[in-house]
Amino acid sequence: MTLNQLGVVKRNIVRADSAAVEKLSKFGVATIHEAMGRVGLMKPYMRPIYLGARICGTAVTILLQPSDNWMMHVAAEQLQPGDVAVAACTTDSFDGFFGDLLATSFQARGARGLIIDAGVRDVDELEKMGFPVFSRAIHAKGTIKATLGSVNIPVICAGTLVNPGDVVIADADGVVVVPAAMAREVADAAEKRESFEGEKRDKFAAGVLGLDMYKMREPLEKAGLKYID
Amino acid sequence: MTLNQLGVVKRNIVRADSAAVEKLSKFGVATIHEAMGRVGLMKPYMRPIYLGARICGTAVTILLQPSDNWMMHVAAEQLQPGDVAVAACTTDSFDGFFGDLLATSFQARGARGLIIDAGVRDVDELEKMGFPVFSRAIHAKGTIKATLGSVNIPVICAGTLVNPGDVVIADADGVVVVPAAMAREVADAAEKRESFEGEKRDKFAAGVLGLDMYKMREPLEKAGLKYID
Amino acid sequence: MTLNQLGVVKRNIVRADSAAVEKLSKFGVATIHEAMGRVGLMKPYMRPIYLGARICGTAVTILLQPSDNWMMHVAAEQLQPGDVAVAACTTDSFDGFFGDLLATSFQARGARGLIIDAGVRDVDELEKMGFPVFSRAIHAKGTIKATLGSVNIPVICAGTLVNPGDVVIADADGVVVVPAAMAREVADAAEKRESFEGEKRDKFAAGVLGLDMYKMREPLEKAGLKYID
Amino acid sequence: MTLNQLGVVKRNIVRADSAAVEKLSKFGVATIHEAMGRVGLMKPYMRPIYLGARICGTAVTILLQPSDNWMMHVAAEQLQPGDVAVAACTTDSFDGFFGDLLATSFQARGARGLIIDAGVRDVDELEKMGFPVFSRAIHAKGTIKATLGSVNIPVICAGTLVNPGDVVIADADGVVVVPAAMAREVADAAEKRESFEGEKRDKFAAGVLGLDMYKMREPLEKAGLKYID
Amino acid sequence: MTLNQLGVVKRNIVRADSAAVEKLSKFGVATIHEAMGRVGLMKPYMRPIYLGARICGTAVTILLQPSDNWMMHVAAEQLQPGDVAVAACTTDSFDGFFGDLLATSFQARGARGLIIDAGVRDVDELEKMGFPVFSRAIHAKGTIKATLGSVNIPVICAGTLVNPGDVVIADADGVVVVPAAMAREVADAAEKRESFEGEKRDKFAAGVLGLDMYKMREPLEKAGLKYID
Amino acid sequence: MTLNQLGVVKRNIVRADSAAVEKLSKFGVATIHEAMGRVGLMKPYMRPIYLGARICGTAVTILLQPSDNWMMHVAAEQLQPGDVAVAACTTDSFDGFFGDLLATSFQARGARGLIIDAGVRDVDELEKMGFPVFSRAIHAKGTIKATLGSVNIPVICAGTLVNPGDVVIADADGVVVVPAAMAREVADAAEKRESFEGEKRDKFAAGVLGLDMYKMREPLEKAGLKYID
Repeated sequence: MTLNQLGVVKRNIVRADSAAVEKLSKFGVATIHEAMGRVGLMKPYMRPIYLGARICGTAVTILLQPSDNWMMHVAAEQLQPGDVAVAACTTDSFDGFFGDLLATSFQARGARGLIIDAGVRDVDELEKMGFPVFSRAIHAKGTIKATLGSVNIPVICAGTLVNPGDVVIADADGVVVVPAAMAREVADAAEKRESFEGEKRDKFAAGVLGLDMYKMREPLEKAGLKYID
Repeated sequence: MTLNQLGVVKRNIVRADSAAVEKLSKFGVATIHEAMGRVGLMKPYMRPIYLGARICGTAVTILLQPSDNWMMHVAAEQLQPGDVAVAACTTDSFDGFFGDLLATSFQARGARGLIIDAGVRDVDELEKMGFPVFSRAIHAKGTIKATLGSVNIPVICAGTLVNPGDVVIADADGVVVVPAAMAREVADAAEKRESFEGEKRDKFAAGVLGLDMYKMREPLEKAGLKYID
Repeated sequence: MTLNQLGVVKRNIVRADSAAVEKLSKFGVATIHEAMGRVGLMKPYMRPIYLGARICGTAVTILLQPSDNWMMHVAAEQLQPGDVAVAACTTDSFDGFFGDLLATSFQARGARGLIIDAGVRDVDELEKMGFPVFSRAIHAKGTIKATLGSVNIPVICAGTLVNPGDVVIADADGVVVVPAAMAREVADAAEKRESFEGEKRDKFAAGVLGLDMYKMREPLEKAGLKYID
Repeated sequence: MTLNQLGVVKRNIVRADSAAVEKLSKFGVATIHEAMGRVGLMKPYMRPIYLGARICGTAVTILLQPSDNWMMHVAAEQLQPGDVAVAACTTDSFDGFFGDLLATSFQARGARGLIIDAGVRDVDELEKMGFPVFSRAIHAKGTIKATLGSVNIPVICAGTLVNPGDVVIADADGVVVVPAAMAREVADAAEKRESFEGEKRDKFAAGVLGLDMYKMREPLEKAGLKYID
Repeated sequence: MTLNQLGVVKRNIVRADSAAVEKLSKFGVATIHEAMGRVGLMKPYMRPIYLGARICGTAVTILLQPSDNWMMHVAAEQLQPGDVAVAACTTDSFDGFFGDLLATSFQARGARGLIIDAGVRDVDELEKMGFPVFSRAIHAKGTIKATLGSVNIPVICAGTLVNPGDVVIADADGVVVVPAAMAREVADAAEKRESFEGEKRDKFAAGVLGLDMYKMREPLEKAGLKYID
Repeated sequence: MTLNQLGVVKRNIVRADSAAVEKLSKFGVATIHEAMGRVGLMKPYMRPIYLGARICGTAVTILLQPSDNWMMHVAAEQLQPGDVAVAACTTDSFDGFFGDLLATSFQARGARGLIIDAGVRDVDELEKMGFPVFSRAIHAKGTIKATLGSVNIPVICAGTLVNPGDVVIADADGVVVVPAAMAREVADAAEKRESFEGEKRDKFAAGVLGLDMYKMREPLEKAGLKYID
């Protein structure tokens, strides 16, 4: 499977370890991105279509052709419970590739949501169904079914490489992709980071300054910071 | 009345049939756009100013000059119960042309909302009043009252031609314009489409795949789609 | 203190009169901007990170370097109850400079919120904490702590000059800056304006047209407006 | 022929009077737009693909589907010497719909250039051929030939209505559309305007101020302008 | 004179020392910006309207109202030989506020060019006249003359504060503003920097690496950089 | 080497076959992209900084941190004659990461140009030196040298995956990446495609229509296209 190869569907993909996915689902996107060493984020134009949308699952990737959602139906068959559909497009396209009918199908397959570097529609219905979507656009414009893309190949979605089986986590801060092979390690690192954050939060709440907690006063002085009255 | 003609107000316009408007109000923008043959949508940068905003009514069109809302007051007098004000501008302008005072006036005239290819302000008050607005910007910047535009001439709003009397429907998926003469036909087509969608939704919910429901397997194979393991 | 001077922290700033700040907190951004003579607004790309966010307080200004939030910690120490942190950046940068830990620290200092011409993260937590933020982006991307900016110097934030101590008011319509020396006068003018608006609103609600209330019919006719049937 | 109707080609269109087109070709876009009463301009994102590109001719309109240039070939047959192809798209699409092969075909038919609210490619070759194009994007991305649009129906191109046969003029300042029926009148008005401009230019060059030439000092004073030292 | 004050024209402004302006004119924008400590740049959306445009002179500032160029004529009278007109607008506006007639007037007054945070037109003529302009848009759209702005007050142009009399330098890399009081010092610093750059350029051309010239190998190793084969 | 790994420099990379690179250098970006099956293009916001810029060579990849060009100096040492520097950034950043000094160094190493998903400066000097650059921005803003990125790891540049050693071709139509292992095959396919284009061009020039050359009349009729008079 090469990046962006057209006309193929891979049926057997190696999904990230389900315990690791479960563990990752407890952390926010910012925490996981930090735990990975500050990589793996999609571009910030990816936004939830409704307030409170949140997703964590294993990626079934879709490469779409512009204004054509044929591959969405092909992808439906490859979805398993716990999966997240991750759709990229061969060029910038803002139409509504996905709506409540496809969401019903995806939900029936057990999918947990959709990440799409393009547009979607029927967003009120999607909210009512509780089917979370993160997209770059909302647009009622319909699409055709005429040209082949692919399913379960590596794709670049919103500036980030996604391999089928990777873990994708999305919340109000954005979308992050954890390679399947790193899922456990990242989940552990996120857990550790979160525990430290709890301590820090308590100190900040008690009025301790970051200047003191992180011992910044000396490096700031060395860097030349001047206080004046 | 020619497109973008300046300095005129047409008093008598032919509004779309009220029964058709009523019927159209039951369908979503995506459905109506499909029922029209996938035309009539405004650009996707038009967004509701509050969650849940929805409009359906007959267009009273307004051609504004940049950063000048004089014609809003002229338009108020032409509004009748069931109308939607549809405001275009002679050039890109993002100021707040409309706020709670004008909304009070429009609401007193029976208007159902505003579609404006520019900015608005007082959006919290507009939500409290229940006066729905779809705009391209929210901006507190005030406007002047110095230059003539027009009311009830054909205008191009967010990339779509709107004639006075056309039906305008707006929801979370965007804004669609149905020419007055087509209102009944489109309402019927939307109804038919919606009924088919109900059946499809049930099948999808039961786990039937689009691949089978739409008999896509053969055309996909002909197009050269390969399944690999 | 000169505009954009790097590497300095001013400790003693003159904050706007607290009674004037209190009075200004009762008015909306659009009203205050009008009361000042239609100046002082930030660019409309500044948006609240959650529904209902509202801020009014005195500015502690921060000049950030791109993708570097070191100065946020320096600023924390300068915050007093009633202050609003106002962060500009030496160049366009969309990363998440601020999250729930810094918000905990700022809140512990008594800060009322943050205005930032860049990105923030942990927005769900910020909402839960009730710490309002207006930003140009939401992005999980972390920042470094390596380069000096400044605190409490004049900065240009989202196209508007902000001096430390100025009053900053933010609501759903945007963000407005009132120079400290004008705070009382503007608060009075806003009050007067608001009282007039109440009268006007009642008239509009009763069906009086702006054409008549503002005596526009004659100037419109002079400008050449034609009514046709 | 209705706006945006799909699947039709109109063979006989009424082109603007050729003498008027010839006359209009002598004036710039800014002058013609002023002569029409400040209407008819396309959005400013339409830019020439090479320095010095200029077009004046009668419109053969094309409605494209996104990422699909099938209708370009259909349009080629309808082009006559002196025509300009004007291509709109049913949704935002930035691919390269047009390159040197189609340009060779269009040029062989006598077409004077292309205005396209989408992308083009082979721009170096187009410059060498002397085939001027104004577009919203340059992109090497190829398109398919799968879906019907239309030729010679009214279209909205870059925010402006274009009817087949209208005069389209493009230069470094942008693109303007003159309805066929107004071509003569606008050409005359442009000529008159240009002659006045010559006089004004001479006066300005001689040091006369606009303040005096246009007698602005009194109205400025009335408006309240204060001079201070 | 306060920032953005409306309705005033200041006649006597203190222009930067002419020798310093002359000296600054020899350096590029990037060099001057570095010599000032990396401040003073306008946003990168400001671009020359023709290839090779370059400006250096003292600012006469103009505050425009949207789509209204009345103040351009007021400003003409305040221009002296060696000045550069610097125009800001009270809100985002992309129309053509300036064309060849005003340029003729400005040129007759001895102005060296225009920096405008808005649009201009007649760009081919401006190039022929050799009147350089840096703007955020090119648009044929005409403007009105109805509302007061100001001349020679402090303005924020493309994100940067400009006081009347400041030195403004523009070239292919952008636009930089040097406060009048700092002009000499910055010119000297730029000269020194440029002389160092000559040496460095020779070394780079001879194949010396920056790694060695700037002694970066040790700090890179300390920072943890790993070389692998 | 994993995608976006920080803090590493790979010294030995496998460059694409030089004969294939040489052959690819004869074709345009649009032709090569078609020969690859319509994949491999960067986003269309990547533009040449001067007219006529063209690049073909093997990629040395650079992962930059925002507003930090330290890795540019590290990369210089890895450049060999025939290479093209391809710089990505861990987040959106528009500053001037590269100017004439670095270009002198890169040119001394034999590099053929730079592709950068960020900003550059000194563009006039770069043109004089004949050092071609394709970038997303031009900005005089300087950068720091404080944080580690990497050299010669896989990066995503302007939406496209680039591995070190891949062939990168850039011209007025954009930028395309050919994986090293496919270079020969793609060069051959481009050659074949170009030869067919010559024939087609001659036919188009002789007045043959695409409708006939590509036998489109029947499929268009089947698709339902109607001709009307």
